Amino acid sequence: MSTVAFIGLGIMGGPMARHLAGAGYDVVGFNRSPEKTEQLVEAGGRAADSAAGAVDGADIVALMLPDSPDVTDVVTGAVFDTAKPGTLIVDFSTIRPDVARDLAQQAADRGLRMIDAPVSGGQAGAENAALSIMVGGADADVADARPLLDVVGKTVVHVGPAGAGQTVKAANQLIVAGNIALLAEAVTFLQAHGADLPAAIEVLGGGLAGSAVLNQKAQKMLDGDFAPGFRIDLHHKDMGIVAESARQAGVVTPVAALVAQLVAATRAAGDGDLDHSALLRTVARLNGASS
Amino acid sequence: MSTVAFIGLGIMGGPMARHLAGAGYDVVGFNRSPEKTEQLVEAGGRAADSAAGAVDGADIVALMLPDSPDVTDVVTGAVFDTAKPGTLIVDFSTIRPDVARDLAQQAADRGLRMIDAPVSGGQAGAENAALSIMVGGADADVADARPLLDVVGKTVVHVGPAGAGQTVKAANQLIVAGNIALLAEAVTFLQAHGADLPAAIEVLGGGLAGSAVLNQKAQKMLDGDFAPGFRIDLHHKDMGIVAESARQAGVVTPVAALVAQLVAATRAAGDGDLDHSALLRTVARLNGASS
Repeated sequence: MSTVAFIGLGIMGGPMARHLAGAGYDVVGFNRSPEKTEQLVEAGGRAADSAAGAVDGADIVALMLPDSPDVTDVVTGAVFDTAKPGTLIVDFSTIRPDVARDLAQQAADRGLRMIDAPVSGGQAGAENAALSIMVGGADADVADARPLLDVVGKTVVHVGPAGAGQTVKAANQLIVAGNIALLAEAVTFLQAHGADLPAAIEVLGGGLAGSAVLNQKAQKMLDGDFAPGFRIDLHHKDMGIVAESARQAGVVTPVAALVAQLVAATRAAGDGDLDHSALLRTVARLNGASS
Repeated sequence: MSTVAFIGLGIMGGPMARHLAGAGYDVVGFNRSPEKTEQLVEAGGRAADSAAGAVDGADIVALMLPDSPDVTDVVTGAVFDTAKPGTLIVDFSTIRPDVARDLAQQAADRGLRMIDAPVSGGQAGAENAALSIMVGGADADVADARPLLDVVGKTVVHVGPAGAGQTVKAANQLIVAGNIALLAEAVTFLQAHGADLPAAIEVLGGGLAGSAVLNQKAQKMLDGDFAPGFRIDLHHKDMGIVAESARQAGVVTPVAALVAQLVAATRAAGDGDLDHSALLRTVARLNGASS
């Protein structure tokens, strides 16, 4: 079976790489903090000492890295220097659509192939191999990647050419941050009125206000449990992608812009390492809470 | 079985009254536009010529009216003038929580009982007897009403004393309008980027961006089908309830406030009679669309 270099073994990449090893792929992992490779080795994978060492000999290079510069560094460095002709690069990271398009073009110019495949579904989705994956790239490349994508994803949809996956992921992050902000305001409103919050959340979830965010984040908000999950710092980065992509296309999105400010305020208050449900803390501060 | 006066037989009240008749209740309906009673009579109910005529002899009075003044007029008029002692008033309308509390107190002072039971789930929820119902009132009164509520609802939750149902419904309307606005911005953003919209909606629905709003409204937005459903005029009224209830409790809700402005702008543009998914038209106008 194919050899997969998997670079970036964090909260998301770690379980995804282990699922690929479990499905029979020869997975060679690299992570900047090397202790993260241990679980992959236990799951049947191999550990590399460098990104180039992982890429050397691989048929597929999978990336799950924090931000556009990280992906650019690895792709234009280790991957372009080391990958054999025809190698398929599958970028699971969430980065700027224009950067994804540009890297895919550079890869094509060098006889490589690159698709963008950002995911939604969070840590639970990665651990349960139930991710939603938004795939951008050429038909043939996406077809070649599909068996691998189906190992880690439940809803895998080809949404357009290179960069299109990142555009849809930006829309995803816009909706998710907004839904969290609205839920935070609703919870704050209900608390101020002395409502029975668990009962309210139950009945809200049964009607048109129901959402994946409500199902996954409301109880955390009621418990004050803001352990990540998906960190505010990363959602702040993603709201920057939304804003920049909207500006490039000349699109006005007032609600997303306000929500981005609340995410930024959450980070400014020192909550960047908390789960994005910690938007509730910002709404609480707007309502007089002292921390 | 109990005799139920049902006042207000519109898009929501009509099918709810018919479900009660179908379940064996003796339903006496009244509607300001009298032709609406015909379907109830066909379903086994009876028609009254006036609100007082419906209430006369009823054990339970059910109301599904547009706004706080309508409910106040009927309750303090026909119901207080005509209802027999101990009559249970079940108000399905969406009105101000403080008005609901005040009417429940006035009813108690006259030896009557009143609960608030606003619903979510829309026309489809009413027709399929699958509504989410947020119930506020005294325990004994809610227990007496539960068999009737279970006929028209699927998720029936007692959320607190009189008025609490309306408070939770206000939170519901805040979330729903916000989710529609976010979906409208996401669709506009994706259109501007030339994304494959049906594919994008499919994959968004499978991840953390998934919601009842996305499931029920996204296709209507793509089709440009804005037939109600739930009219912008009514959601505008409800955002006023959210704003006033938040102000009374001293609660700051910036995203809800911005969304209320977009709902108001949709109404100002002449789209008040369209479904609330027509928020897309306001976002489109902000992006240069001419109508």
